Amino acid sequence: MTTNQPQILRPASYVYGQWHTAKDGQTLYDAIYGRPVAIISSEGVDFAQALAYGREQGAALRKLTFHTRARMLRSLGTYLLERKEDYYALNLLTGATRRDGWVDIEGGIGTLFSYSSMARRELPDERFLPDGKVEVLGKGGTFVGRHILVPRDGVAVQINAYNFPVWGMLEKFAPAFIAGMPSLVKPAPQTAYLTERVVRDIIASGLIPEGALQLVTGDPGDLLSHVEEQDMVAFTGSAATAQKLRVHPNIVARNVPFMTEADSLNASVLGLSVRPEDPEFTLFIKEVAREITGKAGQKCTAIRRPLVPRDRVDAVVEALRKELAKVTLGDPARDDVRMGALVSVEQRERVRGTLEQLQRDAEIVIGGGESELLGGDREKGAFLDPTVLLCRDPLNARGPHELEAFGPVATLMPYDTLDDAVQLAKMGRGSLAASVITHDRAEATELVLGMASTHGRLLVLNRDNAGESTGHGSPLPQLKHGGPGRAGGGEELAGIAGVKHHMNKVAVQADPTTLMAVTREYVPGAEVQEDVIHPFRKSFDEIQPGDSLLTHRRTVTEADIVNFAGLTGDHFYAHVDEIGAKEGIFGKRVAHGYFLISAAAGQFVSAAPGPVLANYGLESLRFIEPVGIGDTIRTRLTCKRKIRKELRPGETRPTGVVEWRSEITNQHGQLVATYDILTLVERARDGFDPPAEPQPQGQGAEA
Amino acid sequence: MTTNQPQILRPASYVYGQWHTAKDGQTLYDAIYGRPVAIISSEGVDFAQALAYGREQGAALRKLTFHTRARMLRSLGTYLLERKEDYYALNLLTGATRRDGWVDIEGGIGTLFSYSSMARRELPDERFLPDGKVEVLGKGGTFVGRHILVPRDGVAVQINAYNFPVWGMLEKFAPAFIAGMPSLVKPAPQTAYLTERVVRDIIASGLIPEGALQLVTGDPGDLLSHVEEQDMVAFTGSAATAQKLRVHPNIVARNVPFMTEADSLNASVLGLSVRPEDPEFTLFIKEVAREITGKAGQKCTAIRRPLVPRDRVDAVVEALRKELAKVTLGDPARDDVRMGALVSVEQRERVRGTLEQLQRDAEIVIGGGESELLGGDREKGAFLDPTVLLCRDPLNARGPHELEAFGPVATLMPYDTLDDAVQLAKMGRGSLAASVITHDRAEATELVLGMASTHGRLLVLNRDNAGESTGHGSPLPQLKHGGPGRAGGGEELAGIAGVKHHMNKVAVQADPTTLMAVTREYVPGAEVQEDVIHPFRKSFDEIQPGDSLLTHRRTVTEADIVNFAGLTGDHFYAHVDEIGAKEGIFGKRVAHGYFLISAAAGQFVSAAPGPVLANYGLESLRFIEPVGIGDTIRTRLTCKRKIRKELRPGETRPTGVVEWRSEITNQHGQLVATYDILTLVERARDGFDPPAEPQPQGQGAEA
Repeated sequence: MTTNQPQILRPASYVYGQWHTAKDGQTLYDAIYGRPVAIISSEGVDFAQALAYGREQGAALRKLTFHTRARMLRSLGTYLLERKEDYYALNLLTGATRRDGWVDIEGGIGTLFSYSSMARRELPDERFLPDGKVEVLGKGGTFVGRHILVPRDGVAVQINAYNFPVWGMLEKFAPAFIAGMPSLVKPAPQTAYLTERVVRDIIASGLIPEGALQLVTGDPGDLLSHVEEQDMVAFTGSAATAQKLRVHPNIVARNVPFMTEADSLNASVLGLSVRPEDPEFTLFIKEVAREITGKAGQKCTAIRRPLVPRDRVDAVVEALRKELAKVTLGDPARDDVRMGALVSVEQRERVRGTLEQLQRDAEIVIGGGESELLGGDREKGAFLDPTVLLCRDPLNARGPHELEAFGPVATLMPYDTLDDAVQLAKMGRGSLAASVITHDRAEATELVLGMASTHGRLLVLNRDNAGESTGHGSPLPQLKHGGPGRAGGGEELAGIAGVKHHMNKVAVQADPTTLMAVTREYVPGAEVQEDVIHPFRKSFDEIQPGDSLLTHRRTVTEADIVNFAGLTGDHFYAHVDEIGAKEGIFGKRVAHGYFLISAAAGQFVSAAPGPVLANYGLESLRFIEPVGIGDTIRTRLTCKRKIRKELRPGETRPTGVVEWRSEITNQHGQLVATYDILTLVERARDGFDPPAEPQPQGQGAEA
Repeated sequence: MTTNQPQILRPASYVYGQWHTAKDGQTLYDAIYGRPVAIISSEGVDFAQALAYGREQGAALRKLTFHTRARMLRSLGTYLLERKEDYYALNLLTGATRRDGWVDIEGGIGTLFSYSSMARRELPDERFLPDGKVEVLGKGGTFVGRHILVPRDGVAVQINAYNFPVWGMLEKFAPAFIAGMPSLVKPAPQTAYLTERVVRDIIASGLIPEGALQLVTGDPGDLLSHVEEQDMVAFTGSAATAQKLRVHPNIVARNVPFMTEADSLNASVLGLSVRPEDPEFTLFIKEVAREITGKAGQKCTAIRRPLVPRDRVDAVVEALRKELAKVTLGDPARDDVRMGALVSVEQRERVRGTLEQLQRDAEIVIGGGESELLGGDREKGAFLDPTVLLCRDPLNARGPHELEAFGPVATLMPYDTLDDAVQLAKMGRGSLAASVITHDRAEATELVLGMASTHGRLLVLNRDNAGESTGHGSPLPQLKHGGPGRAGGGEELAGIAGVKHHMNKVAVQADPTTLMAVTREYVPGAEVQEDVIHPFRKSFDEIQPGDSLLTHRRTVTEADIVNFAGLTGDHFYAHVDEIGAKEGIFGKRVAHGYFLISAAAGQFVSAAPGPVLANYGLESLRFIEPVGIGDTIRTRLTCKRKIRKELRPGETRPTGVVEWRSEITNQHGQLVATYDILTLVERARDGFDPPAEPQPQGQGAEA
């Protein structure tokens, strides 16, 4: 099998609700045989109109809650996954193998699922996000403050690199969409036909609101001249282009946030403790080889600088040579091919040029020639052998720490001490990722903490985690992707942090009752609502933040303490030993803390079956004043906030989480303990639930 | 009393451990009488050397823990407070009243105390900060990740505005110092002599490590040409200067973070619901008048655009006129003077120029003339009357939303609907602060959420919080200072967030045991240490993260449930009602959750007096599997992390907090409940404790 010659593609732009195909444009060639594959142009696209349209349509997106947007992302992920073979077919034309494509295509779609579930798990079902704790700003408690985050009113302009046409788009789109910001995507021209194919499916799916995603295929024209204060720009690509774009006068004049993620000269350190017979030695060789050959080395996170204890350099070269000898080059459509081509002949020439410059400080020890091709065209295809250089005096060299050959190229460097290894890693002046391969924890700790200030992600790889490790080069949705200095200084992904970059953080100062009204979460000191109905008799839909119950009182007796100790087995001296307790910090016997929260539950619980199904957790419990024999406690329970829960397939009873603030006081009105209780509460079926399945008993679960 | 004529000051620079006074320089004049007050120049300062020195000295600063640095800040605050009258004396020369000076001087020193206590309360006593939760990255639990933050390796260059020579320096210095980054401060020349005076005391105090603070008085020369990747720049001042500096080629080439805080056209909205007879009407008038006259209006957060319901414009003008008529101008050293001068005659001329431009869209309704002076020189002093303009058609005007008269000037604007008020506020294109004066919570909510995307701080002011409100114009250490767009897009203060901006966030991926070694916090799945000694018998100093205890087992019986219900009064149907429980979500009677954690305490507690003094709290409790009659539970308790606690004056028993992970499992090995327990544990006295006071019993508390 070889890559099929498709008809020439005409990837279009999708702007202001229309598909826009230019009449003429730049011809792109496939990376394997050099055949024309696509004609691309953004001619005729009105960039000002596209941005204005995005801003306008953003209003509808911002009206949805985080959870609604999260459910949309999940549906979209499922929809795209069913169409993935279409993307794999185009992937081959870019020079990438199926395995390379898996990272791009399924990795990209996986990011949609990850953001969908992180958003539903970690964000409220609201249009804004209360952030951090309530700050009490005055002694009397009448003046309080809290931060909230709201979506920016503008468009997230996303300028992507050619190497990950699918993942590159989706890893920026997903957090923006969750935040409530529409995206305008500008893929690199070389592989834009694949991005466009995915966008076509997204638009056709109808699963996200119109305007939430626009696409500019081809030259970005005067796009950046039209961005405004509430827009933002995220850029992935070369450091040189990033620097040019971020000083665009309009971006500077309007303080438009500009996030850069630039490729960097990432190191991988073979630990000083690792002997050639250790499993970590083999792991290091395989990791370096994979990073050199994966995506033909065209990854911004790839290992460019393997750092090796000086006396193990020969062993490493030998083992790497063997490992790389297994790598077959050619047409990635063939099953026997392990590595494809670079994205274009121009890119290969650029890499060759850098390779030449690198040889001022280093010599080629592996590769550098032209090995046999299994399919593909030697001249018109963009093939390059995996190539390893050795720089013998890296502490005094500059080229290998500065010049990046964005292809299957790495420069081995010997080191003598861990300090030297850290210094070498830092000579990259800021990297996206580095790895440390060792099973020695002290060594790992020293290297990680030493390299931490100049890296965005650090992987420690060893026999314990190799089976599950996702590898040196793989950014993950939960963790930061980005790095300081040379790497651009940006932060992408990192879980909900990536969402927050698309939001504005504002401090809100008010009285407690107003702050509760604004944030829809109970604020200590706010006016509460007391009702004849016990709050535990109200359904999720009826209960509101601020609904409150003040219980009857209970006097704590010696019998309570004794019985509780006997029942639980907790005979700690502060509760049961009159002598020890006198000398202890309370100066007397006191009730068990867990007795107090249990007795408080006895005060506020509503015993008969009702909408509250279970108390499934507790947060922020603090015991403030000890309770001694004869003290009398009472409890105030107040609804703090509500979180709608997803009805999962098969479940019939829709529920939500209600968080309650519990405050136990003593007879002097002093706070004895405060904590937040999490309960699972029934709610009515709503429009976001899947359709009810017929109930065998002939009755639904609706309220 | 009038401001004294001091001898001419020669504020110096403090760089690479030396005071550096230039021979000649620019002459500064006081703002009241126009007398020469200081000669200022940075001539001869080697900026490259200053930065290199700061980076080098930073290593010592980074070796201290957050808490050690926090204690230094507190001592420094006390030291400066004792010398505050020296600063008040110089403050008068800048044109500011004592009340203005209070915000600058005591507000600035207060920021040191705030950061000291926030750091000790919210950060670990470590050199780095674990951030967020542990992410499990593989199903088998062998591959995990977590973010940590470490100080940047460089220097924090802080370029400040003239209006707050003390607070402006200290509010940037404090979070940088807590983070572990040395500061290089460049104050605005006009008031640099006051900044220099404070820095002299700081250096003389010897309370902070040498190199942690450097000062450049005068022109910054080629300073920005020498910043590197690990340095950062924070700038406060005009939007125009910010834009010029942030595109400095060296800053761009090295991706040096550049944080801007620029003055903005802040709005204050009188609620549509507020009638002239309401207390909020008076609050609005007083707030606007204070913001116009405080610091003679030279505040980046001052109210520039009061927004008023159209039919209340006349009433507002009338009331403001009366309020401002009380404001006496002149020499701020006189007790009968309420408002001083602008910082310089040049600044006054600039404001007059802008005032003229503003009159294209607005007319002067209050002020604009030259009222009587109580002391001071009309020509040589920089006096300007409080001036209020009225813009009748603000939705169609541009000037009043764009042109800032940085003096005692505001432009009133009428509005008709809340939507219009929001739109007008947003026409500032990004502001540091805005306020909403209303007692109507629905109105407050609508305005706050409407304005949230374009503001950094929003104050709701009303009768409930007026007594404690710190006002529209006051940034607070706990809350964000900064705003999007026109305001520069920065974030200062905001509690620990301001510290984090001086740190690099790095994702660490490893196996659980290595991640525990790196972060010094227990990671689920890490190898634990079991010892013959019960972990509760170990002191704070002996116990280590990973120390663990696996308890004996206990079978939960019907009697346990019945007794627990009887003792606590918690007769919830899921525990005691066989019929209700069968129909409930568990399908059977189950043990009370609080019984389980109480019984677990009974399993792991060490009853006799020992180093563990009390369980004072609990976090993150989740009940995972229900426990029915006949199920058998056991508990694993593992030390998660340690936090040294401050020994307060008068306290004799040094302690620390030890956090324990508790995991209850059933007979099938399933997790039943997980939670973190906070205990107070005795520790040995150490070098950071105050000296021991003699013990009446003749024995110290030392271990």
